[in-house]
Amino acid sequence: MKKIIIINGPNLNLLGTREVNIYGKTTLEEIQKLSEKKADELNLSLNFFQSNNESEIIELIHETENNYDGLIINPAAFTHTSVALLDALKAISKPKIEIHLSNIYSREDFRKNSITSNGVDGLICGFGSLTYIIAIDAINGLLTK
Amino acid sequence: MKKIIIINGPNLNLLGTREVNIYGKTTLEEIQKLSEKKADELNLSLNFFQSNNESEIIELIHETENNYDGLIINPAAFTHTSVALLDALKAISKPKIEIHLSNIYSREDFRKNSITSNGVDGLICGFGSLTYIIAIDAINGLLTK
Amino acid sequence: MKKIIIINGPNLNLLGTREVNIYGKTTLEEIQKLSEKKADELNLSLNFFQSNNESEIIELIHETENNYDGLIINPAAFTHTSVALLDALKAISKPKIEIHLSNIYSREDFRKNSITSNGVDGLICGFGSLTYIIAIDAINGLLTK
Amino acid sequence: MKKIIIINGPNLNLLGTREVNIYGKTTLEEIQKLSEKKADELNLSLNFFQSNNESEIIELIHETENNYDGLIINPAAFTHTSVALLDALKAISKPKIEIHLSNIYSREDFRKNSITSNGVDGLICGFGSLTYIIAIDAINGLLTK
Amino acid sequence: MKKIIIINGPNLNLLGTREVNIYGKTTLEEIQKLSEKKADELNLSLNFFQSNNESEIIELIHETENNYDGLIINPAAFTHTSVALLDALKAISKPKIEIHLSNIYSREDFRKNSITSNGVDGLICGFGSLTYIIAIDAINGLLTK
Amino acid sequence: MKKIIIINGPNLNLLGTREVNIYGKTTLEEIQKLSEKKADELNLSLNFFQSNNESEIIELIHETENNYDGLIINPAAFTHTSVALLDALKAISKPKIEIHLSNIYSREDFRKNSITSNGVDGLICGFGSLTYIIAIDAINGLLTK
Amino acid sequence: MKKIIIINGPNLNLLGTREVNIYGKTTLEEIQKLSEKKADELNLSLNFFQSNNESEIIELIHETENNYDGLIINPAAFTHTSVALLDALKAISKPKIEIHLSNIYSREDFRKNSITSNGVDGLICGFGSLTYIIAIDAINGLLTK
Amino acid sequence: MKKIIIINGPNLNLLGTREVNIYGKTTLEEIQKLSEKKADELNLSLNFFQSNNESEIIELIHETENNYDGLIINPAAFTHTSVALLDALKAISKPKIEIHLSNIYSREDFRKNSITSNGVDGLICGFGSLTYIIAIDAINGLLTK
Amino acid sequence: MKKIIIINGPNLNLLGTREVNIYGKTTLEEIQKLSEKKADELNLSLNFFQSNNESEIIELIHETENNYDGLIINPAAFTHTSVALLDALKAISKPKIEIHLSNIYSREDFRKNSITSNGVDGLICGFGSLTYIIAIDAINGLLTK
Amino acid sequence: MKKIIIINGPNLNLLGTREVNIYGKTTLEEIQKLSEKKADELNLSLNFFQSNNESEIIELIHETENNYDGLIINPAAFTHTSVALLDALKAISKPKIEIHLSNIYSREDFRKNSITSNGVDGLICGFGSLTYIIAIDAINGLLTK
Amino acid sequence: MKKIIIINGPNLNLLGTREVNIYGKTTLEEIQKLSEKKADELNLSLNFFQSNNESEIIELIHETENNYDGLIINPAAFTHTSVALLDALKAISKPKIEIHLSNIYSREDFRKNSITSNGVDGLICGFGSLTYIIAIDAINGLLTK
Amino acid sequence: MKKIIIINGPNLNLLGTREVNIYGKTTLEEIQKLSEKKADELNLSLNFFQSNNESEIIELIHETENNYDGLIINPAAFTHTSVALLDALKAISKPKIEIHLSNIYSREDFRKNSITSNGVDGLICGFGSLTYIIAIDAINGLLTK
Repeated sequence: MKKIIIINGPNLNLLGTREVNIYGKTTLEEIQKLSEKKADELNLSLNFFQSNNESEIIELIHETENNYDGLIINPAAFTHTSVALLDALKAISKPKIEIHLSNIYSREDFRKNSITSNGVDGLICGFGSLTYIIAIDAINGLLTK
Repeated sequence: MKKIIIINGPNLNLLGTREVNIYGKTTLEEIQKLSEKKADELNLSLNFFQSNNESEIIELIHETENNYDGLIINPAAFTHTSVALLDALKAISKPKIEIHLSNIYSREDFRKNSITSNGVDGLICGFGSLTYIIAIDAINGLLTK
Repeated sequence: MKKIIIINGPNLNLLGTREVNIYGKTTLEEIQKLSEKKADELNLSLNFFQSNNESEIIELIHETENNYDGLIINPAAFTHTSVALLDALKAISKPKIEIHLSNIYSREDFRKNSITSNGVDGLICGFGSLTYIIAIDAINGLLTK
Repeated sequence: MKKIIIINGPNLNLLGTREVNIYGKTTLEEIQKLSEKKADELNLSLNFFQSNNESEIIELIHETENNYDGLIINPAAFTHTSVALLDALKAISKPKIEIHLSNIYSREDFRKNSITSNGVDGLICGFGSLTYIIAIDAINGLLTK
Repeated sequence: MKKIIIINGPNLNLLGTREVNIYGKTTLEEIQKLSEKKADELNLSLNFFQSNNESEIIELIHETENNYDGLIINPAAFTHTSVALLDALKAISKPKIEIHLSNIYSREDFRKNSITSNGVDGLICGFGSLTYIIAIDAINGLLTK
Repeated sequence: MKKIIIINGPNLNLLGTREVNIYGKTTLEEIQKLSEKKADELNLSLNFFQSNNESEIIELIHETENNYDGLIINPAAFTHTSVALLDALKAISKPKIEIHLSNIYSREDFRKNSITSNGVDGLICGFGSLTYIIAIDAINGLLTK
Repeated sequence: MKKIIIINGPNLNLLGTREVNIYGKTTLEEIQKLSEKKADELNLSLNFFQSNNESEIIELIHETENNYDGLIINPAAFTHTSVALLDALKAISKPKIEIHLSNIYSREDFRKNSITSNGVDGLICGFGSLTYIIAIDAINGLLTK
Repeated sequence: MKKIIIINGPNLNLLGTREVNIYGKTTLEEIQKLSEKKADELNLSLNFFQSNNESEIIELIHETENNYDGLIINPAAFTHTSVALLDALKAISKPKIEIHLSNIYSREDFRKNSITSNGVDGLICGFGSLTYIIAIDAINGLLTK
Repeated sequence: MKKIIIINGPNLNLLGTREVNIYGKTTLEEIQKLSEKKADELNLSLNFFQSNNESEIIELIHETENNYDGLIINPAAFTHTSVALLDALKAISKPKIEIHLSNIYSREDFRKNSITSNGVDGLICGFGSLTYIIAIDAINGLLTK
Repeated sequence: MKKIIIINGPNLNLLGTREVNIYGKTTLEEIQKLSEKKADELNLSLNFFQSNNESEIIELIHETENNYDGLIINPAAFTHTSVALLDALKAISKPKIEIHLSNIYSREDFRKNSITSNGVDGLICGFGSLTYIIAIDAINGLLTK
Repeated sequence: MKKIIIINGPNLNLLGTREVNIYGKTTLEEIQKLSEKKADELNLSLNFFQSNNESEIIELIHETENNYDGLIINPAAFTHTSVALLDALKAISKPKIEIHLSNIYSREDFRKNSITSNGVDGLICGFGSLTYIIAIDAINGLLTK
Repeated sequence: MKKIIIINGPNLNLLGTREVNIYGKTTLEEIQKLSEKKADELNLSLNFFQSNNESEIIELIHETENNYDGLIINPAAFTHTSVALLDALKAISKPKIEIHLSNIYSREDFRKNSITSNGVDGLICGFGSLTYIIAIDAINGLLTK
C-alpha cells in the first residue's frame, strides 16, 4: 500500500470559518475527511497535516523522501515568500504536487508570483475543496504510471 | 449525457515528434485516444480539437456557451500573449480549465506570465499527457458538484 | 458620397449578451443599426464589420487606402497586443479613429497599455454604444475639414 | 437649458502662438468661439475657462456638482501629474469628459501616463480644435441619453 | 498655552458629502469641531485650515516654525505628488505628524507611494475622523515629552 | 472590561540595548510597563507578548478572534516579508492596529514596502515608545466608537 | 537541388508603396524577383510567401521540416509579439534565418524586443532589400558547410 | 540694455535659515544682491523673483517671451514633478538656463529625475550661491554670441 | 580561548545526500568535523548548529553578543528572504561572516539578491566545504587583528 | 580596389582554444585566412585587427573615415557596455556592419542588450565563422549598390 | 598662478567635423584656443587634454591632486558607463567640474543616466563651446572663493 | 613551486592615501608586502599587479592560463561594468577568486550589481587588507585540494 502525505500551510486551520467568499465554507476537517475517503477508494494510506510553522513544514517535506511515496502541498502564504520551502521540495525525488483552493491568477498581483511552484512536478489550483480530490487522483496517476 | 470540449493551441499538432525532452514522446493523437477513453468511462461526450489559429480557438470557445457543458483548453503559446483568448474565456459561464503539459514554473521566465489563466476556473499543469486525464476528472467533478 | 468603414475586433460579436456590467446590454447588431442611421443622416456610406481574426482585420485596414475615405476601429483585445495592427494602421493615410466602449483607464492595468493607438489620428472611449455615434460625427468632421 | 463648463489647463492660453507644429495655429480664443457656436446650436449654455492654477481648476470642478450639467476638461500638463485633479473629478457625479488636442499616444512616453483619465466617463483626443466640437456633441449625447 | 495647526489638503472640503463609502459621512466642519473640543480638553490652542492650493499649504507650513508648537497635516492627494510639500516639511523643526482618514495601504497602488511622509516625525492613518483626535493626542504627547 | 493584546515581532527583545540611534534607549520591558499603566488608566486589560517566531505570532493573531477585543501589532522585520501574517490579520474581524517605533518612510527603501499593513485597520508609526501609548488610545477609541 | 522557403509576415505586401522612408521603395514583388534570380545563381529552388495570418505562417514553418532544406523568415510585426512563431521555429531542425529590412536597433524601443529571434540559427538585418540576397547566400553557406 | 529674469521656486525663501548643511548659509536676499551686482557689471537689467506658487511661476515664464531677453530658473522641488513648468519653458524661444544650488546627482534618487531640464538650453548646478553668478555670466554669453 | 559559533540554515542537514551536483558530496557532519579540526588548530572553541527554524537562528545570533567572540553563518535560503535575520545580525557587534557553499553569482537570478549580507562584516562563497575552513581562518584573523 | 577593415574586440584572440561549445573550434587566425580569401575573390583589400583595448578600437573606427571604404566590427563584450564605441561608429559615414559569431538572442539576458548596434547599418549574427564571409559579401553588396 | 586641467573624453577629437547638428561646427582645437585665451584673461595656467583611453583619463585625474588646483572634465561617452572614472574623481579633493556640450536631458534616454556626475562638485551643460568658457569662469570662482 | 597572480584594478594605486574611511589606511604597497609574506609562508610564488587599464588586466588574465596556477583579482570599479573581464575570466580554467576590500553589500546600490563575479570560482569581500591574506589561503586550499 502506497503512502502519501498532504501538507497544509499557514492559516488553513481557519478554513471555512472566515473569508468564506474567497475560500468557501468547507472546513479543513471536512477536507481531511473527503481526502481520507478518496485515498481509501484508491487504496492509498494518507497522512494529513496543517502547520503555521515554516520549519515544521520543511521537516515534513524532508521526511517524505524516506517515509512516503508522494507529497501534496498547499503552501498557502508560503507559496509567495519561502525559498526555504522551494529548496526542501527540490531536494525530494518523490512525486510532488502543489495545490491551491483558489485560482491564484484571479487574485492580488503578489499572489501570482509563486516561488515554491518551481520545486514541484505539477500544479493544480482553483477547484475549492475539490482541488484535494483531484490532486489525490493525480498523485495516484503519477504513482501508477 | 454531458458534453465537453478540449481545445489545443498552436504547435501541439507536433507533439511527440519534436522537442521530446520537454513535451514527451506521446503524440496528440495518442492523447486524444486516452482522453476519449477516459471521457467514455465517465460517460462524457468529448470533442477534441487542435488549431494553430487564434480566431478558430476564439470561436470554439464561443460555441462552448451553447453547445457544451464544460471546456478544457491547452492554449500553448497563446497562454502568454492572447488577451483575445482571455476575453473569450471570461465571456463563457460554463466550467473551464486551463492545462499545460509541463510545469510552466520550471521554464523560461516569459512562460511564467500567463494571460489566459485569469479567465478560467482552475489550472492544472506539469503532468505530461496525464494532465488531460486529470483535467477530465476535474471537469467531471465540477459538473457533478 | 464619402465612404467609411467600421471594424470591430475579437469577441465584440458577443456584445450585449455577456459581461453586460462592463459592456452594456446593447448588441453589436443594434450598434450597427444606430451607426447606419447616423451615417445616413450625415450622408455617409458605411460598411460595418466584425472579425475575431487578426489577419482579416489587417486586410480590411489595407483596403481602406483605396476603397474608403475614413476608418473607425474598435480593436478590442488586439489594442493591447497587436503590433501587426499598429503597422497596418500606420500604413494608411486616410483619417482613422480608434474607439472603445469603456474608458480603458478605469479597467485592469494591462488594458491601459495601448499598442494600436499610436497608429491612429484620434481616440474616443468610454461612452458605451454612443461612442460609435460620436466617432462617426468625428470622422465626418475630419472629412469635411 | 442645460449648462456645461469647459476647463482648460496650464499653458493653453499660449495656443496657436507657439509650438504650432504640435498644437496647431488655432488660438484658444478661436476655439472658445467655435465651442460657443456649437453649444448654441445644441441649445447648451457654455462657460469656458482657462487657468494655469491647479487649485482654481479643482474649485471649478467642485462647482460643477451644483452649477453645471456636464464638464469637459483639457487638463494639459496636469493630466500626467495631478492626483488632486483626479480626486476632484471622482467626487463629481455629473457627466465629465477629458479631452486633448493631440493624440497623447503619439508623443513622449511620460505623456502616455494619464492620472486624471481614471476620473472621467470618457476620453476624446487627437482631433485638434475639432476635439472641442466633438466633445460638446458627446456631452450633449450623454445629457440627452 | 501651546498652539498647534491642522492643515487639510485638496478636496477635503467635500468630506462627508461625496464618496462616503471611502471617506465616511462626517464633514470637515464636524471634524473641525471634534478637533477643537479635543484640543480644548488638552489645553491646546488650535488653528484648523483647509486649502486646495499647494502654495498656500507650503506657506502655512513655513509659518509653523515661528507661530506654532506643532503641526498636523492631512496632505490628501499631495501626499503622492508634492516634493515641494516634502521640502517645506523638512525645513520645519517643530513636531509634525502626517495623517490620512483611510489606510493608504488598502487603496490603489499609486496611493501607497508617499512622498511627504519622509518629511514628518510620525504617521497615523486609517481611523476615519478619529484619526484627528488620535493625532492631537499624539502631538500633545510629543509636546509634553 | 475590554481585553487587548499587543504583539511584538522579531528582535524587539533587544530594544534599548542596541542600535539605540534608530530605536531609542527605552527597553521593551519599560514599554510594557508604560503600556500597562496606560491600559489601566483606560480600564483595559492588556496582554503583552514578544516573539521571534512567525508561527507563534500567527497563532496569537488567531487567538484574538475569540479571546480579545482588539489587537496592536509591531511586526518589526515581518512587516516587509510575511504574507502569512497578512493572511492571519485579514482573517480577524476585531479592531487591529499596526505600529512601528520609527517612521518607516525615513529608512531604507525595502522598509517602505509593507506587506502586513494591508491587513489592519490603521497604522501608527514614528513616535518611539510613545507609539504604544498612542495606539492604546486609538484602539480604545475604536472600541468605544 | 536544395529547396528553400522565404516567409514574409504581416503588412509586407504593402512594401514599396507606403512608409518608403523606413522600408525603401522596392516592392515585395521586386524583392521576390531579386531573390529568385539569386537562388537561381546558387542553384537553389525557392518558394516565396507572404501572409498576414499568423496560423498560415506557423503552418508554413511546420512544412519546412519535411519539404525544404532551409528557411528564411521576415516575421515583421510578429517578431515582437508571437510566442507561437517562436515555438514553431524551435520545433524545426533545418537551417533557419530571421531577417529584417531595417536595423531594428535604430527604431522604436518595443521593436528592439525580439521574441522569435531565439528560435533561429542566425539573424541578418538592416540592409534593405539586399538583406534577402545576403540571407540566401548565408543559407546556401549553411547548406554547403 | 538687455533684460533678464531670475525665477526661484518653492521654499527658496527659507534659504540660509534652515537645512544649512545642504543649501549653505547665504540667504536668498544675499543671493539677490550678489546677482544684481553681477548683472550691473555686465550691464544687464535684472528682475529677481521667488514664488511657492506653480501658476505664478508659469506666468512669469510666459512673460519672458515679450518682456525679457533671457531667463534663469531655479525650479527647486518643481524640477522633479512639474510637467506644466516644462511645457511653459518649451514654449519660450528666449535663452533659458536651469540652475540648482547643490549637485542634484549627489542627493536622493528622486532628485536625479529632472522633468524641467528638458525645456531649457543649459543646466548649471552644484556651486552654491556662486551658481547664480555663473548663470548670469552664461546667459550674458548666450545673449552676446 | 576565543569562542566562535557556526550557524547553518534551512535544508543544510540534507547536504551531501541530495542535489550533489550543486552542493557536493560532503555531508554537514563531515563539514562539522573539518571545522572542529580547523578550530582546534587555531585554538578556537567552536559551537556548530543547523536549524530549519528562522526564530531559532535569530536567537542563536542574539546569543552571540554575550556568549561568543565571533559568528559564521550560512543562511542558505534565508539569505534571500529574511529581513529578521538581517536585523538580528545588525544588532550584533562581534565579528560576523556570511558564507555560501556555491558562488551565488552563478545561480538563479533570485539567489543573487542577498538581504542578510548587508548585516555582516565579510562574505565568503563558492569554495564548497573549503568555504568553512577559509571562514574560520578569516574570523581568526579578525579576532587577532 | 576598395579597402575594408575588420575589427575584432576583446578576448577574440582566444577563439577556438577555449569555450569551444559556444564559439566553435575555428581560431581567429583561421577566420582571418578565410576572410582574406573571400576578400580576394571579391577583389577587396582587407585589413584584419584584434584588440582587447577599447581606445585602440575607437581609433581604428576613426581611421575608417579616411582610410577605408567599409567597416565590419565584432565588438564582442564591448557590444553590451561601450557607449564610446557607439559614438565612434555613429561618427563614421562609411558602410558599417556589426557581427557576432553566436546568435546573441540565444544567450544570457544581458547579452541581448546591444549598445553598439544602434551605430551600424546592419547586423549579422549566429553563423559561426561563416558570419565573417557573409559580412564581407554584405559589405561588398553595400559598396557596389 | 593657479593651474587647471581640462580633460576631454572619447571621440571629442572629431568635434566640429562630424555630427555637427548635435555638437556644432567648432573643432576641439578652436575650443582649446578659446579656453587658453579665457584662462589667460583670468591669469590661470591651463593644460588641455583629449584621450579616447579610459586609463589615461583616470591617470590624468589622479595627477590633479598634486599638480593642479582644479579640474574640468568632459567625460563624453564615459559619463554613462565608467564607475572607474567616478571612483577616480571621488578620490580627488580639488575643485572639479563636469561639462557637456549639449544638454544631456534633451538626448537619448541612456544619456540622461550619468555615473560620473556624482563625483564632481558642479555640472555645466548645454552651452556648446561656450560651456568651456563658463566652466573656466566657474572654477576660477571656486578657486578665489 | 606553485605560481599565483594577484591583479588589482583601477584606482587601487591610491589605496591608503584617500577615502580612508571606506578603504582603510593601508597602502597597496603594504598589502603587496603582506601578500608576499603570506605567499612565502605557503611556499607560493606570487606576482602582484595593479593597473587602471582594462585591456592590460584582460591580458594578465589571459596569461594566467599558461603562466600561473591560480588567480586572485580585485576588479575594483570594473566589477560593476566590464563584460570583457567576465569573458576573460570565463575563458580561464585555473582556480580564480574575486576579492573586495569592503563588503559590497553595505555600499551604494550600483555596487551590489557584480558582472565579473559570475566568472570566478569564489568570492571573498569585506575584510579590508586581511581579504588578500584570506584569499591567498583560499587559493592555496584550492590548489592543494
